[in-house]
Amino acid sequence: MPRNTTVRDYIRTIVDFPKEGIMFRDVTTLFADPRGFRMAVDQMLHPYAGEQIDKVVGLEARGFILGGAIAHQLSVGFVPIRKKGKLPGTTISQDYKLEYGEAIVEIHDDAIQPGEKILVVGDLLATGGTAAAGIKLIERLGGEIISCAFIIDLPDLGGRKILEELGMDVHALCAFEGD
Amino acid sequence: MPRNTTVRDYIRTIVDFPKEGIMFRDVTTLFADPRGFRMAVDQMLHPYAGEQIDKVVGLEARGFILGGAIAHQLSVGFVPIRKKGKLPGTTISQDYKLEYGEAIVEIHDDAIQPGEKILVVGDLLATGGTAAAGIKLIERLGGEIISCAFIIDLPDLGGRKILEELGMDVHALCAFEGD
Repeated sequence: MPRNTTVRDYIRTIVDFPKEGIMFRDVTTLFADPRGFRMAVDQMLHPYAGEQIDKVVGLEARGFILGGAIAHQLSVGFVPIRKKGKLPGTTISQDYKLEYGEAIVEIHDDAIQPGEKILVVGDLLATGGTAAAGIKLIERLGGEIISCAFIIDLPDLGGRKILEELGMDVHALCAFEGD
Repeated sequence: MPRNTTVRDYIRTIVDFPKEGIMFRDVTTLFADPRGFRMAVDQMLHPYAGEQIDKVVGLEARGFILGGAIAHQLSVGFVPIRKKGKLPGTTISQDYKLEYGEAIVEIHDDAIQPGEKILVVGDLLATGGTAAAGIKLIERLGGEIISCAFIIDLPDLGGRKILEELGMDVHALCAFEGD
């Protein structure tokens, strides 16, 4: 086994995925390694030690893997934000712009109670579109977002700035620039 | 908060989702409750205490929430099995039949090493189609499957029988009959 010492060392780059010119930062190699996965979860939680968190909200789909681990570690509940049509109960939805067209994310309308303290978890902060839509959903239900935690920040794509303009505290374990 | 005492008590039933006549067993209410989620993860792991498990494989997408928590609890790596086209690296794929048409699932071809002991995790065992395809992928990579763990078994749909015919050990926390 490799003896990597940082989370970043475990992340694999796939060239031209999902399309030409994209350097895709692949966290599956981080998740598949026992020390890598544990390091990622522990480091994501580190900034919040001692703070009250009532629920973890994960962004589909890689945010589910991290969010499940983080919620279990904290002994709190986990709430998914999913693409339109996947959640079976009554939902509220939020649309956001993509490079071409738009997308819609949803949350169950009874998944968060007003005043609950929420940690938002995703794997990657790129343009911030999905995360910003998720934040709006949580706030519409009255949730109080403590912070948004990611493994990777791609600062050139501006997502951190968008979330900070929404008043968010943002943490990421590492950054890849030039993307 | 409700004082439910079994995992089954936390599961909500949504009538006519995703289509008329289906009683959808919704685990999001289980996951959103701090005691429910912890109970589910602990009970899913209970049969394997003392056994060697090298990796947890989760089936998209609700299996990611559980699988992430279980892998972190065990301090092992997590590997996703995803629908076609979602994984960025080189993959192997397996098709399986749906009620109408077919579907394809994939795994990264370097995600499991021959001889590794694998726990397969999903939320729901229905017809067993996705799970059986996932099992074939893991075995094609040389993984040795210790067991397949689910929250819910729908025995009338025959999935357990299909997995047992593949030589699998199958555990589920609860069953809903008449589905």
